[in-house]
Amino acid sequence: MVSVEEVAKHNSKDSCWVILHGKAYDLTEFLPEHPGGQAIILKYAGKDATKAFDPIHPRDVVDKFLDKDKHLGEVTGEIAAEEEEEVTPEEKARLERYENRPPLSQIFNSFDFEYVARHTMSPNAWAYYSSGSDDEITVRENHRAFHKIWFRPRVLVDVKNVDISTTMLGTKSSVPFYITATALGKLGHPEGEVVLTRGADKMDVIQMIPTLASCSFDEIVDAATDKQTQWMQLYVNMDREVTKKIVQHAEKRGVKGLFITVDAPQLGRREKDMRTKFGDPGAQVQQSDDSVDRSQGAARAISSFIDPSLSWKDIPWFQSITKMPIILKGVQCAEDALKAVEYKVDGILLSNHGGRQLEFARPSIEVLVEVMAALRAKGWQDYIEVYIDGGIRRATDVIKALCLGAKGVGIGRPFLYAMSTYGEDGVCHLIQLLKDEMEMNMRLIGATKIEDLNPSMVDLKSIFTHSADTARDILGENVYQHMEMPLFKGSKL
Amino acid sequence: MVSVEEVAKHNSKDSCWVILHGKAYDLTEFLPEHPGGQAIILKYAGKDATKAFDPIHPRDVVDKFLDKDKHLGEVTGEIAAEEEEEVTPEEKARLERYENRPPLSQIFNSFDFEYVARHTMSPNAWAYYSSGSDDEITVRENHRAFHKIWFRPRVLVDVKNVDISTTMLGTKSSVPFYITATALGKLGHPEGEVVLTRGADKMDVIQMIPTLASCSFDEIVDAATDKQTQWMQLYVNMDREVTKKIVQHAEKRGVKGLFITVDAPQLGRREKDMRTKFGDPGAQVQQSDDSVDRSQGAARAISSFIDPSLSWKDIPWFQSITKMPIILKGVQCAEDALKAVEYKVDGILLSNHGGRQLEFARPSIEVLVEVMAALRAKGWQDYIEVYIDGGIRRATDVIKALCLGAKGVGIGRPFLYAMSTYGEDGVCHLIQLLKDEMEMNMRLIGATKIEDLNPSMVDLKSIFTHSADTARDILGENVYQHMEMPLFKGSKL
Amino acid sequence: MVSVEEVAKHNSKDSCWVILHGKAYDLTEFLPEHPGGQAIILKYAGKDATKAFDPIHPRDVVDKFLDKDKHLGEVTGEIAAEEEEEVTPEEKARLERYENRPPLSQIFNSFDFEYVARHTMSPNAWAYYSSGSDDEITVRENHRAFHKIWFRPRVLVDVKNVDISTTMLGTKSSVPFYITATALGKLGHPEGEVVLTRGADKMDVIQMIPTLASCSFDEIVDAATDKQTQWMQLYVNMDREVTKKIVQHAEKRGVKGLFITVDAPQLGRREKDMRTKFGDPGAQVQQSDDSVDRSQGAARAISSFIDPSLSWKDIPWFQSITKMPIILKGVQCAEDALKAVEYKVDGILLSNHGGRQLEFARPSIEVLVEVMAALRAKGWQDYIEVYIDGGIRRATDVIKALCLGAKGVGIGRPFLYAMSTYGEDGVCHLIQLLKDEMEMNMRLIGATKIEDLNPSMVDLKSIFTHSADTARDILGENVYQHMEMPLFKGSKL
Amino acid sequence: MVSVEEVAKHNSKDSCWVILHGKAYDLTEFLPEHPGGQAIILKYAGKDATKAFDPIHPRDVVDKFLDKDKHLGEVTGEIAAEEEEEVTPEEKARLERYENRPPLSQIFNSFDFEYVARHTMSPNAWAYYSSGSDDEITVRENHRAFHKIWFRPRVLVDVKNVDISTTMLGTKSSVPFYITATALGKLGHPEGEVVLTRGADKMDVIQMIPTLASCSFDEIVDAATDKQTQWMQLYVNMDREVTKKIVQHAEKRGVKGLFITVDAPQLGRREKDMRTKFGDPGAQVQQSDDSVDRSQGAARAISSFIDPSLSWKDIPWFQSITKMPIILKGVQCAEDALKAVEYKVDGILLSNHGGRQLEFARPSIEVLVEVMAALRAKGWQDYIEVYIDGGIRRATDVIKALCLGAKGVGIGRPFLYAMSTYGEDGVCHLIQLLKDEMEMNMRLIGATKIEDLNPSMVDLKSIFTHSADTARDILGENVYQHMEMPLFKGSKL
Repeated sequence: MVSVEEVAKHNSKDSCWVILHGKAYDLTEFLPEHPGGQAIILKYAGKDATKAFDPIHPRDVVDKFLDKDKHLGEVTGEIAAEEEEEVTPEEKARLERYENRPPLSQIFNSFDFEYVARHTMSPNAWAYYSSGSDDEITVRENHRAFHKIWFRPRVLVDVKNVDISTTMLGTKSSVPFYITATALGKLGHPEGEVVLTRGADKMDVIQMIPTLASCSFDEIVDAATDKQTQWMQLYVNMDREVTKKIVQHAEKRGVKGLFITVDAPQLGRREKDMRTKFGDPGAQVQQSDDSVDRSQGAARAISSFIDPSLSWKDIPWFQSITKMPIILKGVQCAEDALKAVEYKVDGILLSNHGGRQLEFARPSIEVLVEVMAALRAKGWQDYIEVYIDGGIRRATDVIKALCLGAKGVGIGRPFLYAMSTYGEDGVCHLIQLLKDEMEMNMRLIGATKIEDLNPSMVDLKSIFTHSADTARDILGENVYQHMEMPLFKGSKL
Repeated sequence: MVSVEEVAKHNSKDSCWVILHGKAYDLTEFLPEHPGGQAIILKYAGKDATKAFDPIHPRDVVDKFLDKDKHLGEVTGEIAAEEEEEVTPEEKARLERYENRPPLSQIFNSFDFEYVARHTMSPNAWAYYSSGSDDEITVRENHRAFHKIWFRPRVLVDVKNVDISTTMLGTKSSVPFYITATALGKLGHPEGEVVLTRGADKMDVIQMIPTLASCSFDEIVDAATDKQTQWMQLYVNMDREVTKKIVQHAEKRGVKGLFITVDAPQLGRREKDMRTKFGDPGAQVQQSDDSVDRSQGAARAISSFIDPSLSWKDIPWFQSITKMPIILKGVQCAEDALKAVEYKVDGILLSNHGGRQLEFARPSIEVLVEVMAALRAKGWQDYIEVYIDGGIRRATDVIKALCLGAKGVGIGRPFLYAMSTYGEDGVCHLIQLLKDEMEMNMRLIGATKIEDLNPSMVDLKSIFTHSADTARDILGENVYQHMEMPLFKGSKL
Repeated sequence: MVSVEEVAKHNSKDSCWVILHGKAYDLTEFLPEHPGGQAIILKYAGKDATKAFDPIHPRDVVDKFLDKDKHLGEVTGEIAAEEEEEVTPEEKARLERYENRPPLSQIFNSFDFEYVARHTMSPNAWAYYSSGSDDEITVRENHRAFHKIWFRPRVLVDVKNVDISTTMLGTKSSVPFYITATALGKLGHPEGEVVLTRGADKMDVIQMIPTLASCSFDEIVDAATDKQTQWMQLYVNMDREVTKKIVQHAEKRGVKGLFITVDAPQLGRREKDMRTKFGDPGAQVQQSDDSVDRSQGAARAISSFIDPSLSWKDIPWFQSITKMPIILKGVQCAEDALKAVEYKVDGILLSNHGGRQLEFARPSIEVLVEVMAALRAKGWQDYIEVYIDGGIRRATDVIKALCLGAKGVGIGRPFLYAMSTYGEDGVCHLIQLLKDEMEMNMRLIGATKIEDLNPSMVDLKSIFTHSADTARDILGENVYQHMEMPLFKGSKL
Repeated sequence: MVSVEEVAKHNSKDSCWVILHGKAYDLTEFLPEHPGGQAIILKYAGKDATKAFDPIHPRDVVDKFLDKDKHLGEVTGEIAAEEEEEVTPEEKARLERYENRPPLSQIFNSFDFEYVARHTMSPNAWAYYSSGSDDEITVRENHRAFHKIWFRPRVLVDVKNVDISTTMLGTKSSVPFYITATALGKLGHPEGEVVLTRGADKMDVIQMIPTLASCSFDEIVDAATDKQTQWMQLYVNMDREVTKKIVQHAEKRGVKGLFITVDAPQLGRREKDMRTKFGDPGAQVQQSDDSVDRSQGAARAISSFIDPSLSWKDIPWFQSITKMPIILKGVQCAEDALKAVEYKVDGILLSNHGGRQLEFARPSIEVLVEVMAALRAKGWQDYIEVYIDGGIRRATDVIKALCLGAKGVGIGRPFLYAMSTYGEDGVCHLIQLLKDEMEMNMRLIGATKIEDLNPSMVDLKSIFTHSADTARDILGENVYQHMEMPLFKGSKL
């Protein structure tokens, strides 16, 4: 039991208490470890932070991660309501746009969702979901790389009946793509990741549960039906006992695959996100900045969550604590793919973390070509399942990956955008669009089932080219007069 | 005999009657099979649909495709005139632009026609003609690919007399290009495909008749003169008897080549077209959408028209029912080209359906290079005639294709645009422009007849490159200050 | 002797007389042969055409090309002054811009001249000079190709003294570039080509005299000083006696090289020029259009001037009528270069006619690489002098060409623009700029004399690439939000 | 002793005296040798030039470079104060922008500094710092080239502890990059280069001292602390005794490396700088122009400062006069790199002088690949230290260079911009940003120390490509209608 007045005194970096759901917590020591940065916590030092906490975090996160002796107990006295922040004209306009968003029937593809999301999501949520590292080259190349692959379709194949279902990690799925793990679902939708769970169930699609979800792990599993398949994405904790508990709990709850993230020993810097958050200390998420004590380095700030010392040596340990298939999420070159086989993991997910980690990491579809060639050279292509994610926006992207040897592909941001704009209906609509595109394009390429897809159906001649056009000849362009179209009478059209 | 009042009762999905030219028809069962989607028919359920029907369909289409027991007979009573739709300001402006279109003498090339068409055609017609699948990459690459081929002209050749005539499928033609088959000509011109027929006659050019023409097959053949050559494009019907009847009728009427479409087991999704049609249910053509019962899938909706099970096994049957040369329209890789020779067809037309079917299908000119190399490797290059279409806009495009081994090339959209903007005069003018360009460029490349054109006259070094420039260095570009031109005194020019 | 009234009656296509400098001429039969098209002549049918004629043609052209029986003699009576055309606001603005053009000291490079020219020349003159064939791809690639060549400079070379003079066709020149032949100089400057002659003299640069000059051949030779070198560009006339007379006259007058144009059996179609001339029949130059009787074809219209039957067989005849070095202007591939050696001509000029003839002809700098490789493979590189023109805008372009084996390079449009904007001063200034750039860049590349330049000084890895970027991913670009720069306080900068 | 009135008489090219800090100097003979051009001096002929002199030159420059007999002694009489130039509205706006520049905490990368610099520096200073030669192709390619290199990161490496320190020329440094030499620091910051010195000290970074600094050499050395490492960049003087004195003085003062500039026998022409200076004769710096007597050529104007005859033969002499490691700054191809080893120099700096000298010099990162391959082919890679500069903007750029074999990299303009906008704080902030980026990206690539970086971590497939896209298909683009996004209700968004 602690009084409101007492809490109010601990309102600084040196002693920082906050109130959550009527209970007080001492976060002083936790401050530098907060993935979202110190600033956002300090804003609520000595006050009630529930309203800022709830939209982002699962309720049980404090119980899980905060030592019991920091739990200060129930708060007595009247907890002051957080002052209403005034709605800015920008925010008003945004809400209006949200009301007037196009009918779902007018959404023809994943870009349409992204377009609506960009204009209706809160700037902070949009920035967090959409941003990438440095100059956002990799985040854009992920999809652009698919534009370097062309089809070599076969005609006069009987394609009356087309079946796009497949099996991934031993489970049947209606489609060869799955909803991949992405953090902080409540930024986009008040209910968070369970919206995806429900949509996935309706459309028979596999969902991967993220470590950094806004809903708790159990909430997400509870939201699933019996026939549904869920996988789990894991950030490995420095305290391996915590990790063990999480993994074994997941296995017990029926999770069918363990995706260990290996491309994020330190979380990337995303400047678009930082720019958006600037001047809005209350919304800094995942982006530690100069409000954090730099002497420790940004890396340190998150080190208690994600273990930068994770290495190949840890793999056997994982294999000893669970029977779930183990997949390494974030492999990015042939050397590591071969190593993964040697370590007998069940699968690798070629991924650059949606372009949010190492800038100039190569698009996964390009890495896939390299990896499959290396596996085939050793005759190892069937020893391991290979997945990719990053930049998948169209069914043609999916088909290209499958032709090249992927067992399945993960789709992330498009589902966040669909969920953030139209909720569960949006998620289902997106899946239906992709299914329709899949089925049509299977027909047009001359394939009736997933196994029909093979490398001879794609033209890869330009896949490894990363041309950057020579700097523009500005003077030459300035003086060149463009050709003109014929003149309409009496008009300047 | 059925009364107007009775018809009016059948105004829903459950029972849908319409009046056409004074007769009533029960379209209830036909609804899901309509290529143009259910919505457009339902708009006229219980009413007179003649005014919407005529601009698009040949009169005999109902007799051909609708079971006799759905013909309900003459309608009695006063058929209410369709309400005049008000002319929108946009429509008024468009009609004004049409009136003020540039004089034909100012049209210098096929792009000029397209420009005028874009600004004077009805939005629906323009969208239907111009759209392609998905992101419209292939539709644009078709022409762009020609920009990767360069000439190696020979000089000091006596080119006083140049002859650009050739022989295709055994028939003489004044030029090595033909008007290819495109659907729904009446969208662009009230008289439809016969306008092309008349222009083709005047300029001695071969015309290919489309299955989905707005004019009936016989109308198009009737419009031709004795000396004219016509070919036929065929969508194969699930009911092979119907197909047989169509083919043999064509042969009897003097058609000189049968082009069987093999790249469209399912019609493509064209989002630009869908976007344009949105909110205009009365104009949905060929683009079934969510107004169609999705449970059946878009593919099903057209399955009674085009047979997705068509396969190589059917080829001998076609050879058994007609003596016309058989050409496979839509072949897209060397493997299928070789197969075509093995099946002893007379020709192949390398085509991606104008970029309207499989997105990321390669430009035909690129496929041509692959196919000719494969044929030559086997010594089969003379066993089969090879045609291409897609993206031909200039005589240089034609010449490039011929240098690379094509027997002839098909031109589609440019003729639709010429016809839609200036009618028969436009069609003739376009052909004349192409002839003039052909003759001039033959001279400039150092060739006096079609057979002179050969692979040594083109530089192909970049033909297989599909570079997609690395994502722009936006920050770098933002901070770079462009060089400037000298300042005019006292002015900002 | 013929009266003004009589002349006035012959004002149609059927009988077309015009007055020039007080004399009447019957141009009826000449009409279809006029390189500038019929329209411009017909505008003056029955009237005085002197004012339109003088700015474009040398005075002696009528004597040279028109049969004596078409000379009708002196005109009696008062010749009506041509009506003054009103000065349009556009024309007024243009003249004002001309008055306010930047001081010459602010012109730093050839692009600056082009910029001023574009904004101060008459639209017709600009269009005629600047236009190219079809889509103007080749005209632009000519310079762009130089951007694919990079330097491999040598350092720590003593470059105190740099000499950029060289010898071309046996004559010494202060620089390894020359002013190449371009038609109709009076369009840009009232005095025409002699302005170039005077500048060339002052700066010790060689000039090539064009067949289609506005000044007469003798005027241009007369304008030269004794120490000056001039070459001659020749369009070969169907009447070889005329050609012989021209050639031998040139030799007698001291011309030091004969450049026979071989890339123009028919003059190209330049649509930008046609577009500009539209509606201005009085200014159609070189661009026959639909005002010409199409039944004869555009090619026929000029056939009496340029012989399309010119062929390798004619070369020995040229060698028999003159001792001047003979250079083939317009060679465009290795095969023809080798042939030229076999025919023992003295030089070849790799050229695509400034991109005004065959569209998609390769840039000459690229052809140079191919040609030199072929010559060296045979050990013939010293049997012939190789020149190039097209797209030379900077001294670095000149140096690249010389590194690759060119003996010298021709520069055309930049001189037209310099002459049209600043007259003789402009011509001298342009040469001085190029000389300064030459000397500096020789130093920076580590060369002290022209012979030091060699292939090891350039990086050619990308020279043969003609990439055309894959069609833009428009939807993807639409939804991507660009990164932003930091915000200035209180401002939107 | 000379009177103000006497000085005032010498106000022309023929006799040009100026007053600096109360003393008179006769600059008549020096005029054509002034690197900044004659115009700027002539502006102050007969007057006090102190205010224009001080911001750019070190005080001792006159003593060093001007013969004693040109020192005319103290000036008597009242020296007229230079008239205040009125502050233009543009200047006022600039100063206001400077006041409102973003807080340093909002500067996330080097581009942000450049952005602020562009909008807050004086136009002359900005133009001098930012400009490059000719069309500024090389200046832009320097950074763009890094965009052609992609990473092949290794995962599951224990990267808990990352060390980014290294040793260069035998000295330890906290980072593998250094502040390279750039001229005229006082243009950007009133205190000049010592600002960089102080920042370098605080952040433990090596600084290279430029010959053409605004601060004197001793001022810069004096500003350093004992533990700091400084190198020296040398323009070799025609008078080798002067050079010897400079070099030996530097060695005595503790300089740890001698970088001899070999890429600037003549200073480049930078047109953007020239354009900016136009009409502002008082600010012409380093850019001789037509106000200089052209008869001598721009090269001559600077010949007394930089010796164009410097050659390999001079290397042994340098080795004889100093024990400092000798590095050739500006090597640009493998041939010269091998020669450098043969001449036993200690290092080479691959550099194109920030794109300010030879246009179309290749980006140094590309030259690095060529050079390391040549060294390795001979087994010489350890005989010499290889550095590069040019276009380094991100830590990923640094890492790429190190992976490819560079010992360290120089960074120039970013430090000028940081110094010009935020002074010493800016310099430190930039270094901190780079360090943070370095550490993070080392982790993400799977390296814990500099030596871990190796060629297998980069994908170089496109490094040698200098594609220049084929000229745009303008007509085709004009007529293509872009795809559109879904419509928001009642709005045009």
